[in-house]
Amino acid sequence: MSGRLTVIGLGPGNADQVTPQAANAVAKASFFYGYKPYLDRLELRPDQTPIASDNREELARSNEALAKAAEGHNVAVVSGGDPGVFAMAAAVCEAIEAGPDEWRAIDLAVVPGVTAMLAVAARIGAPLGHDFCAISLSDNLKPWELIELRLLAAAGAGFVIALYNPISRDRPWQLGRAFECLKAILPGTTPVIFGRAAGRPDERIEVFLLADADAAKADMSTCIIIGSPETRIIRRGDKPALVYTPRSATGAKR
Amino acid sequence: MSGRLTVIGLGPGNADQVTPQAANAVAKASFFYGYKPYLDRLELRPDQTPIASDNREELARSNEALAKAAEGHNVAVVSGGDPGVFAMAAAVCEAIEAGPDEWRAIDLAVVPGVTAMLAVAARIGAPLGHDFCAISLSDNLKPWELIELRLLAAAGAGFVIALYNPISRDRPWQLGRAFECLKAILPGTTPVIFGRAAGRPDERIEVFLLADADAAKADMSTCIIIGSPETRIIRRGDKPALVYTPRSATGAKR
Repeated sequence: MSGRLTVIGLGPGNADQVTPQAANAVAKASFFYGYKPYLDRLELRPDQTPIASDNREELARSNEALAKAAEGHNVAVVSGGDPGVFAMAAAVCEAIEAGPDEWRAIDLAVVPGVTAMLAVAARIGAPLGHDFCAISLSDNLKPWELIELRLLAAAGAGFVIALYNPISRDRPWQLGRAFECLKAILPGTTPVIFGRAAGRPDERIEVFLLADADAAKADMSTCIIIGSPETRIIRRGDKPALVYTPRSATGAKR
Repeated sequence: MSGRLTVIGLGPGNADQVTPQAANAVAKASFFYGYKPYLDRLELRPDQTPIASDNREELARSNEALAKAAEGHNVAVVSGGDPGVFAMAAAVCEAIEAGPDEWRAIDLAVVPGVTAMLAVAARIGAPLGHDFCAISLSDNLKPWELIELRLLAAAGAGFVIALYNPISRDRPWQLGRAFECLKAILPGTTPVIFGRAAGRPDERIEVFLLADADAAKADMSTCIIIGSPETRIIRRGDKPALVYTPRSATGAKR
């Protein structure tokens, strides 16, 4: 008997940014696997069971959820933002590929959501208005040298860069090092957005210039957007400044 | 008297992927500016007025919408997907920067949405599960040489690549040329996803290998995701194959 597993994106954190598709998927599932802060966002019924696990236990969580689905249950794995962007959908696929054949017979669905960089961008204007990339700054699963190579390749080719997982207790120096790398090839006047908890009550969106960007101002809930040399700041008097990247570009900067 | 302008992302096209935030913003606005197919998705009341304009008229549309808002109205500009990704938010910011001072006093809000690459990725597994970039293949607003430079920089550094605006009647050769560029540096076995109208009734999601990717199979509604050398395909018998990019990486491929 093969069950169902749905990987659900809950969006940035504000209830009004959860899609109806995600809300419906939550209503239908019986068992919910996820990082506790994401499970805490759900309003579950008495017949629905949350099973919390810690951050960095994505593969074990995926295996447990797939085993439960393979018993015939309707199982949900929840992610903040979009589950396909540095989140649970890839971990579930890894577990399926490495797991028993019967897991391939499970009905798998992924419900997309508004990922952090889109929520942050929306709060400040349109910094992702031209070509951009998303890089996880965590070197838990890839070597730091590869991250530096990607930062330099992306900035050198004129991409705006969104950084996920910029900093944590166990990864204190990486964001500062990333800024140092980027300062070597981008103008010091390049806008850098620190977008914390976009759309939530504790939201804090701040704009700095790259020359002044201070890694200590970021935390685990921050998504950072580093402009390209084309990215512009519009001052608006007593209203917050807008940051946007024009749709047009004339050439690479190096 | 300064009014309000909200740039609203309507998501991929399915009503259950429109966030409550977007639906509420639609309910509150009086005048709606946008490309006709996006306006046609709205169920407006008799007191709400749609003003349609053609594709590629983004700046003129932004100017009209801002002028209307500056008269004191509650105005909406609608985009499919997310308005910050190759859509109207940047055009509105460009218009504000170039326009009269009074436009800076307009209350501007951007409502994010599920952008096409996230919707396509969700339908096939987790191809964006590791570092990725988004490139508009339109050379209307940037030189083709810059697009090639970015394709090569991104693929060479191991990014998964999502291509927006891959092809149109006036841009018939660019996608084929992009595939040729990428074939020179990526394995022919790299998965390529053609995701058309994800989540809509006329959805068509197909997976090819780069060596066999045929630009003629794309149209204006297609978002294309080109894997990295790490991207994998999981065959599942009579169920659709999954495509995903593992969360871990060992090094750049060149």
